[in-house]
Amino acid sequence: MSLLDAAAKLDEADPLAPTREAFVIEDDLIYLDGNSLGRLPKRTISRLRDVVENEWAHELVLGWNHWLDIGLEIGKRLAPLIGADGTEVALCDQTSVNLYKVAMAGLNHTGRSDIITDAGNFPSDRYVLEAVSKAAGGRLIFAPEDPTPEDIEDLMTDDVGLVSLSHVSYRSGRMLDAVSIGSIAHDHGALILWDLAHSVGAVPVDLHLWNADLAVGCTYKYLNGGPGAPGFLFVRGSLVTAIEQPITGWYAHADQFAMAAEFTPKRSIGRFVVGTPSVLAMAAADEGIQLTAEVGIEPIRTKSLALTDFFIQAMERLQVHGFEVVTPIEHAVRGSQVTIRHPEAYRISLALRNVGVIPDFRAPDLVRFGFTPLYTTFTEAAHAIDRLDAIMVAKAYEAFDPSRSGVT
Amino acid sequence: MSLLDAAAKLDEADPLAPTREAFVIEDDLIYLDGNSLGRLPKRTISRLRDVVENEWAHELVLGWNHWLDIGLEIGKRLAPLIGADGTEVALCDQTSVNLYKVAMAGLNHTGRSDIITDAGNFPSDRYVLEAVSKAAGGRLIFAPEDPTPEDIEDLMTDDVGLVSLSHVSYRSGRMLDAVSIGSIAHDHGALILWDLAHSVGAVPVDLHLWNADLAVGCTYKYLNGGPGAPGFLFVRGSLVTAIEQPITGWYAHADQFAMAAEFTPKRSIGRFVVGTPSVLAMAAADEGIQLTAEVGIEPIRTKSLALTDFFIQAMERLQVHGFEVVTPIEHAVRGSQVTIRHPEAYRISLALRNVGVIPDFRAPDLVRFGFTPLYTTFTEAAHAIDRLDAIMVAKAYEAFDPSRSGVT
Repeated sequence: MSLLDAAAKLDEADPLAPTREAFVIEDDLIYLDGNSLGRLPKRTISRLRDVVENEWAHELVLGWNHWLDIGLEIGKRLAPLIGADGTEVALCDQTSVNLYKVAMAGLNHTGRSDIITDAGNFPSDRYVLEAVSKAAGGRLIFAPEDPTPEDIEDLMTDDVGLVSLSHVSYRSGRMLDAVSIGSIAHDHGALILWDLAHSVGAVPVDLHLWNADLAVGCTYKYLNGGPGAPGFLFVRGSLVTAIEQPITGWYAHADQFAMAAEFTPKRSIGRFVVGTPSVLAMAAADEGIQLTAEVGIEPIRTKSLALTDFFIQAMERLQVHGFEVVTPIEHAVRGSQVTIRHPEAYRISLALRNVGVIPDFRAPDLVRFGFTPLYTTFTEAAHAIDRLDAIMVAKAYEAFDPSRSGVT
Repeated sequence: MSLLDAAAKLDEADPLAPTREAFVIEDDLIYLDGNSLGRLPKRTISRLRDVVENEWAHELVLGWNHWLDIGLEIGKRLAPLIGADGTEVALCDQTSVNLYKVAMAGLNHTGRSDIITDAGNFPSDRYVLEAVSKAAGGRLIFAPEDPTPEDIEDLMTDDVGLVSLSHVSYRSGRMLDAVSIGSIAHDHGALILWDLAHSVGAVPVDLHLWNADLAVGCTYKYLNGGPGAPGFLFVRGSLVTAIEQPITGWYAHADQFAMAAEFTPKRSIGRFVVGTPSVLAMAAADEGIQLTAEVGIEPIRTKSLALTDFFIQAMERLQVHGFEVVTPIEHAVRGSQVTIRHPEAYRISLALRNVGVIPDFRAPDLVRFGFTPLYTTFTEAAHAIDRLDAIMVAKAYEAFDPSRSGVT
């Protein structure tokens, strides 16, 4: 049976196949970069038209009577996807700003100064965490990329107040052992802060089960919230009123419209919100979140593993071209992407784009294929493999300029 | 001649009358709260449809090839409205986050610890500036509301690193003497930071003429950028590479896609940008900004003064009801609003809403009428006066509950 025939059978049996219809897909792109920017849900179009052409146009300032807490209301709808209570989550700001706020609040609470992250963490995380540790007079300590619990244990000291890692690596797609790492942080008196950018909407996240203290994430990847959609933050219930974030905007005030002389933070997750939210951006994110929450994470995870299994198995046929599959074979530590390593990764990415397959290049030698179970089909995965094979056989990538420029 | 007849004549002669057609106005509301949330420009509808249904849906991740610097590109279009160079302005984040970033960067640069603001400044400004001064080991010093240059001079010490004020007060509508106050700050070795929320798009702003160091502002008031539209920041050219903001996200990195180990800030205004921008929110703001820039600030200011003159003169007839006009009569120090004081301000605001006039109540005793020259007519101003008169004559406000709740 050909790869395409096998894929067609899997698509036919796929209980999530109908959810592809919930998205605008008028192209024949093999889009395997939903973990950079998710596709547009159809319902988002009508929601945005309503928000702009009805709410903004006609309610005008009175719209704030129902927009005011939009970030907290959406947070309640997001909470079940990350194993949190609705009172522990807020949509607000961008991910890096949220990371800054909760990292500052958390580290300050411990009275310590050092932070542990890993060398492969997303750049914004590394840079922001470095600034936060410096502000406390400490330093950022790097574990090896994709650290084991033992790697973290080895670095713990009494100066470490915060361990902050990405639950799923944007490079390798490896998922960390959140329970063990969190436990190590706590054993040494530190807090644990998870970046869920490549987890939320793709893999089960259970912040309560993990005993997580803090978390941040974005909504424009697997949650399909739109380009640059707002970030979210989580603070464990028992910490909410115990810690204070540094950017004390009026939204964080206990009595926002009193315009009081003194700043008194809200006694709720609202104290981590800063200023007036973009209602347009929030509304778009809301639709993507609701769509994902309605489907539920279990069927998404089941299909994600089936898709990535299928892709990884098919890659075996392509080993002859010198690829190494970087993403773990083991289900328990695999995210919803497959990353492969090849010295010509950059030009291979360009050659794939040229034949209608959109992966993501990660310097210096990684090609990343993201699988969004809500709309990615097995047939698409099969086409990607077939076209990649053809490119390698014909060395078609050699036609492309190896000098990197622009957004990659 | 009746007030309505006089208004009709003024509308007929108004060169900006046609710009009202650029907005969606399908209601007969007398909307005098454009300085809380501006109306929806018609062009914004088609721009958003294009961004969502064409760019997001079909370009997907490749859209970032042209979205990447959207905040800097819009900044260039905004710059002429605030007397800045295009290389000194960025749209990014919300206003309070931007205030935090530039205030931290500026104060840190001076090596000093205290900040001066005024007691009537917008709450978010006061709270954020207090946090920034505390982080530097200093304190926030309050000048009287709507301070004169002398008020600021009296408070200057060698510990004051930053003077931060709103150019036009959201309460009184008074415009401060930006040149003199900036000069005093500089004479004492401090930097000057202006909040332009109630200025931009409404009154002439010339940051270069003022020798301003830093500025922030929002785009959802007179710029009609949409509910919660992104904020902007300005850093004087000669300061751009001399100061560093605290939230070191990947967008601020000199080589964003190198994913480098070290954080090296951009040598441009881009170093004040943190993370991935909301393209939807940015695009909406862009349309409002472009519309305003195309009209130009001079005709806007001319009509703004004519509208507020008309309203203030008509208020004289209503003095018998116990109103005090708080906004200055003098053109040179008047923003684009008229604030009146009355002990029953809250219930009068509710009674006005009840008859289709939307002002803004400001505790404890102010009613604020905002005039957006791009769409507010003299006839609307006249109707507002007539209905206010009728409310006072009939004591119609007594029908409303005096206990305040919700968004006011």
